[in-house]
Amino acid sequence: MKLNNVFVHQVYFWLKNEADQAKLIEGINTLAAIKGLKQIHIGVTANTPREVVDNTYHASLLTIFDNKEAHDVYQDDPIHHEFLANYVKPLVAKVVVMDSVDPN
Amino acid sequence: MKLNNVFVHQVYFWLKNEADQAKLIEGINTLAAIKGLKQIHIGVTANTPREVVDNTYHASLLTIFDNKEAHDVYQDDPIHHEFLANYVKPLVAKVVVMDSVDPN
Repeated sequence: MKLNNVFVHQVYFWLKNEADQAKLIEGINTLAAIKGLKQIHIGVTANTPREVVDNTYHASLLTIFDNKEAHDVYQDDPIHHEFLANYVKPLVAKVVVMDSVDPN
Repeated sequence: MKLNNVFVHQVYFWLKNEADQAKLIEGINTLAAIKGLKQIHIGVTANTPREVVDNTYHASLLTIFDNKEAHDVYQDDPIHHEFLANYVKPLVAKVVVMDSVDPN
């Protein structure tokens, strides 16, 4: 199925301490309760052994919204703010986000 | 909807020449015909103005499969090989892939 007219918000997390992986994933799971999410996948690297693959991150979050407005509402949801304060700030060393929309 | 038991293959492309963006996207679109794809999104950066967001890539490809085996079949599909030879090799300077699976 080809997804059209969506806002794809992809996040990759690198921990300060690898031992906190399960705790971070627990935190990412709290985000699934936010309204307006069309789809969510919480993941870890598949460790695909290819040169172009980045297997260094400790957790990934894929979220799909109907549009940028729904994404913006998610960013400002109290659950998201709690996640940032309770999990990202204390545990995460680096975050990379890729936000993608349909080409014109 | 929470996605479980899937293989998420996320690809980001940086062009040698920005002028080739439409041509690369045309090429990425050919991949949608490959069997075994559960979902596919072809995108460009949303240019979200936040420090943690990487807006430098020229095209993105999100593909979701039922499992690693379906992803491996996709990688070896003739359409994928043609895409690599006709679009990636001549046009693309850098590719970064993130392959994610459910946490254990």
